[in-house]
Amino acid sequence: MSDAHLAVVLASGGMDSCVATAWAANRYRLAMLHVNYGQQTEAKELECFGRLVERFRPTAHLVVDAPHLRQIGGSSLTDARIPMPEDDAPGEIPSTYVPFRNANLLAVAVSWAEVLEAGRIVIGAVEPDAPGYPDCRPAFFEAAGRLVDLGTRPETQIRIETPLIGLTKAEVVGMGDDLAAPFALTWSCYRREDAPCGACASCRRRAEAFRDAGVPDPLFP
Amino acid sequence: MSDAHLAVVLASGGMDSCVATAWAANRYRLAMLHVNYGQQTEAKELECFGRLVERFRPTAHLVVDAPHLRQIGGSSLTDARIPMPEDDAPGEIPSTYVPFRNANLLAVAVSWAEVLEAGRIVIGAVEPDAPGYPDCRPAFFEAAGRLVDLGTRPETQIRIETPLIGLTKAEVVGMGDDLAAPFALTWSCYRREDAPCGACASCRRRAEAFRDAGVPDPLFP
Repeated sequence: MSDAHLAVVLASGGMDSCVATAWAANRYRLAMLHVNYGQQTEAKELECFGRLVERFRPTAHLVVDAPHLRQIGGSSLTDARIPMPEDDAPGEIPSTYVPFRNANLLAVAVSWAEVLEAGRIVIGAVEPDAPGYPDCRPAFFEAAGRLVDLGTRPETQIRIETPLIGLTKAEVVGMGDDLAAPFALTWSCYRREDAPCGACASCRRRAEAFRDAGVPDPLFP
Repeated sequence: MSDAHLAVVLASGGMDSCVATAWAANRYRLAMLHVNYGQQTEAKELECFGRLVERFRPTAHLVVDAPHLRQIGGSSLTDARIPMPEDDAPGEIPSTYVPFRNANLLAVAVSWAEVLEAGRIVIGAVEPDAPGYPDCRPAFFEAAGRLVDLGTRPETQIRIETPLIGLTKAEVVGMGDDLAAPFALTWSCYRREDAPCGACASCRRRAEAFRDAGVPDPLFP
C-alpha cells in the first residue's frame, strides 16, 4: 500500500526542482532523489543537492548514477563536442535536449517510490519556458502516469505531480519566493561550476526570470 | 528521421531476448543493448551478451550500467537478503520482480534509439509464462509506446515490438529452434554463474519449456 503522504522528489540542484521541493515539503514527507547523468556540471549540481538535503532534512535521500545518458550522448549537456547554445530559438528543440531524459529520471523515481511505498512523485518540470523539450509537456506526464499504473504492483498507487508545469519561469521564481525556497543553494549554469557564465541559455533564462519576478537572485548579490 | 530498418534490441543474455534478437536479425539491422542493473548473475549475463554480439554481429552494441536498481533493491534479483523463490506461486508477484525494471530498460533503449535514429525497439518480454510481472503485459508496452511518441522529438518515430509477448515459454523455444537461435550462448539461472542450479524458478521454467517444446537444451548436453 502506497503512502500518499510520502513523496519522492526529483532534485537536480537547479532552481525549478528547488521550488518543487519547497512545494512538496509543505505537503509531504520527502524522499529526495538526485540522478547524475553525466551532464557537464554534474559535480556542482551534486554539491547543491547535498546542501538542499541539509536544508530540507528529508526522510530519505538517494543519489544514483545513470552514466548511460552520457555514453549515449546526442546533447550538448552530455557531449562537450556539441556546441552549447546561447539563445533559445523559438519553435526549435535546442541541442540541450537530452533524449528521453525525463523518462529515464521518472523510471528511477518510480522504482524507488515503489520500494519505499511512496505514493507521490514530484518533478519540477516547467513547460512554458522549457525550450520545446518534448518530455516537459503535460501530456508526457499524463502518459507516464498511465505507464506507472500499468507497470507496478496492483497495490502500488503512485501519482506523478508537476506543480510548476504551467508556470512561466518568472512565476516559478515568485512561487519560490513565497515558499522561501533556498535559491542560494541552487545552480543553473550549463557550462561552469565556479561562477555562473551569465551567457548560456540557462543563465539567461534564470536572469530574465528573477528580473521579471522582481526578486533579487542570491547568486548575484 | 528514424530508420525503420534499424532496431535497438534489448539483450539480457537470457533465452527470451536471444530469440527476440534472432527474430529481429531476420528483419532489421541490429543495435544490441545490454543493461547491467546489479542482478546477482550480472557477470555471467554480460559474458553471454558478448558471445551473442560475436554471433549476431550488430551494426552497433552498447553496454550500460544502471546500478540504481541494486541500490534501490526490493527484489531477490538485486538484494541477496531477499530469498530467491523456487516456485512460481500462481496469481502472486514473486520476489524476483524488480520494481519497474522494464520501464528503466526501455527508457535507456529509447534514448539510444533516438540518438541512433533507430525506428524500432525489440524486447523479448513474454507474458503467459512471466510470473505476474506487471511490466510484462501488452498494455504496459502500449502505454510505453505512447510515452515514447510524446516524449521524443517530433521527427523521431520509434515503434516498440514485443515479438514473444503472447507466446508460452515452450513456444519461445520452438520459435528459437526455427530461427536457429543460439541457445547455447544464453543463461537463465538466477543464482549461479558456473553451472545452472537447476532448482530456481528460472531454471525450472527453462527446463519445462525445452521439455514441452521437445527440443534439447544445449546447456544440458
